[in-house]
Amino acid sequence: MSIAVLYGGSRPNGNTEVLTRKVIQGLTVEEIYLKDHLIEPIVDKRHAEEGFPEINDDYNSIIDRILQHDILIFSTPIYWYSMSGIMKNFIDRWSQTLKDTKYPDFKKQMSQKRVYVIAVGGDNPCIKGLPMIQQFQYIFDFIGTRFDGYILGEGNRPDEIVEDKRALVAAEQLRKKLQ
Amino acid sequence: MSIAVLYGGSRPNGNTEVLTRKVIQGLTVEEIYLKDHLIEPIVDKRHAEEGFPEINDDYNSIIDRILQHDILIFSTPIYWYSMSGIMKNFIDRWSQTLKDTKYPDFKKQMSQKRVYVIAVGGDNPCIKGLPMIQQFQYIFDFIGTRFDGYILGEGNRPDEIVEDKRALVAAEQLRKKLQ
Amino acid sequence: MSIAVLYGGSRPNGNTEVLTRKVIQGLTVEEIYLKDHLIEPIVDKRHAEEGFPEINDDYNSIIDRILQHDILIFSTPIYWYSMSGIMKNFIDRWSQTLKDTKYPDFKKQMSQKRVYVIAVGGDNPCIKGLPMIQQFQYIFDFIGTRFDGYILGEGNRPDEIVEDKRALVAAEQLRKKLQ
Amino acid sequence: MSIAVLYGGSRPNGNTEVLTRKVIQGLTVEEIYLKDHLIEPIVDKRHAEEGFPEINDDYNSIIDRILQHDILIFSTPIYWYSMSGIMKNFIDRWSQTLKDTKYPDFKKQMSQKRVYVIAVGGDNPCIKGLPMIQQFQYIFDFIGTRFDGYILGEGNRPDEIVEDKRALVAAEQLRKKLQ
Repeated sequence: MSIAVLYGGSRPNGNTEVLTRKVIQGLTVEEIYLKDHLIEPIVDKRHAEEGFPEINDDYNSIIDRILQHDILIFSTPIYWYSMSGIMKNFIDRWSQTLKDTKYPDFKKQMSQKRVYVIAVGGDNPCIKGLPMIQQFQYIFDFIGTRFDGYILGEGNRPDEIVEDKRALVAAEQLRKKLQ
Repeated sequence: MSIAVLYGGSRPNGNTEVLTRKVIQGLTVEEIYLKDHLIEPIVDKRHAEEGFPEINDDYNSIIDRILQHDILIFSTPIYWYSMSGIMKNFIDRWSQTLKDTKYPDFKKQMSQKRVYVIAVGGDNPCIKGLPMIQQFQYIFDFIGTRFDGYILGEGNRPDEIVEDKRALVAAEQLRKKLQ
Repeated sequence: MSIAVLYGGSRPNGNTEVLTRKVIQGLTVEEIYLKDHLIEPIVDKRHAEEGFPEINDDYNSIIDRILQHDILIFSTPIYWYSMSGIMKNFIDRWSQTLKDTKYPDFKKQMSQKRVYVIAVGGDNPCIKGLPMIQQFQYIFDFIGTRFDGYILGEGNRPDEIVEDKRALVAAEQLRKKLQ
Repeated sequence: MSIAVLYGGSRPNGNTEVLTRKVIQGLTVEEIYLKDHLIEPIVDKRHAEEGFPEINDDYNSIIDRILQHDILIFSTPIYWYSMSGIMKNFIDRWSQTLKDTKYPDFKKQMSQKRVYVIAVGGDNPCIKGLPMIQQFQYIFDFIGTRFDGYILGEGNRPDEIVEDKRALVAAEQLRKKLQ
């Protein structure tokens, strides 16, 4: 089974990255840092006669990369009680891919994957991060992907996540499961 | 009382815009279309020694505009069960403004406003839009703004929102309240 | 189309009842007050060899009554951010009915109905009542019933609900829809 | 620090009990089985002139017992996506205790405690149990108690919980924390 991680954070070595690395330690993983790529926000043309235009950015190249893998890990800091805007823009674009004749099997391919979410926030994430988890469930339900689990960690200052023992144990458990 | 509307949609005259216009019909309102502005995603420098750099985009000018008003209406289509990535990037940047010496009273000023959310989605928004509403509540709690109400409408195809009688009546009620 | 209302409140003429009566005014409705009936809490025997015992209370008679109708309205005050314990005990017993040979078609019959929820609470119900609405959605999803809408009203003191204009308008709208 | 566990299940040695016992193994704990006590549903008299009548059941004796302890563990199976009706009836009665002159310091005393929730369900509890967790947060916020954590486990058939490795590890972690 092959694994891709999508990082939605904007800070190198942020708490979410640190926690995610505990999970993927020793595993072969393709790591994708959304912040290092240009991803335009969607312009909704689902109902436009002309359809979606070709967008000249890095979005499709990232789709091509994640479609190679069996397991996807969405790793995002919790910004304002939800995934980062960078990651949201990436997911918003799926509406385009679902209509894209270059990806006729996008939904089917996504439905064969399993996903995990790893998210770290500073304001009571185990409660205030729950709406985000419910949204991820709706997202994965829609696209047909099996949502196999999530880890919510607490941290604000750099590296503070290492004090969240509960999250670290959960990360270690997930690591073993993914081996 | 003066009113600003922040539109998070990407489609001109989308369903959320149509519903929002029912609310603001006949009122004096400053309308801000986020899609027409450049808003960079946040780069989290809250804990960096050098702090946040100046960003050369339209974000601050929009902050300046909304700070003039007493009532803010966040008008967003529901993309993938949450606000649009465009709007999320705008809100993510508040973390920067909270540290910005040019806006020493940002939180205090925001806490004196009242906000409404208007959102239209195509997939059972009255249920699947609820996590988004909870997130907005957390967001406004954090910034101290009073969350005075929301309207969730259903619509997918252009103008389909006009068939959602429940949402139209709610829009008319809000219009009267804002007069 | 025939309608039954299940009242979960414990106070005669409580706010939830008042709001519900606005909805059913002029309609022919069977009204069932759970508080006037003995409904034992479930004793989970789903996995017991002997199965569920016959329970000598009013539960089955209420099931018999609701099964006659096409539309069910669950009318409950919000006690501690959820439906009343009385109503919860009623729904908990569905697990027994699902195994009851006297009701071989319970799920099928329930799946042919449409349901509404009307709930009034005193502590920001339009936000803090949302988890309850999500639970009702899960409940109705499980049993296969179509969840056609809900009204959340605000009120604490007797009759305070009549000051919640938004809820009253929603009630009037639902009344017209049910005619 | 002294600990009380409130069991809301109806089945002896149910999955939630099994998981909770992993947590309290080796600790001195007062165990209270709500199913073995008579707890009348609340009759809301908050606004009645005569106030709440004395109720002749076991409710107050349980309140007396939990008030002795520093840490409370609410252990409930997830019935229909929420706590059991038995436990809900117990919590509903807090509205009465808050007005009871025999318990003038109920809220203050509760606010000095810390609580945990342990809940096991059969239908995707890590997602579909989240609204219940949010409700517990609202409940504990209202009463002023610090909500220190929760464990959601998966299980349907008797003892199935022992296959949920994630929950078992979380239970062991909580056990160490409570030592």
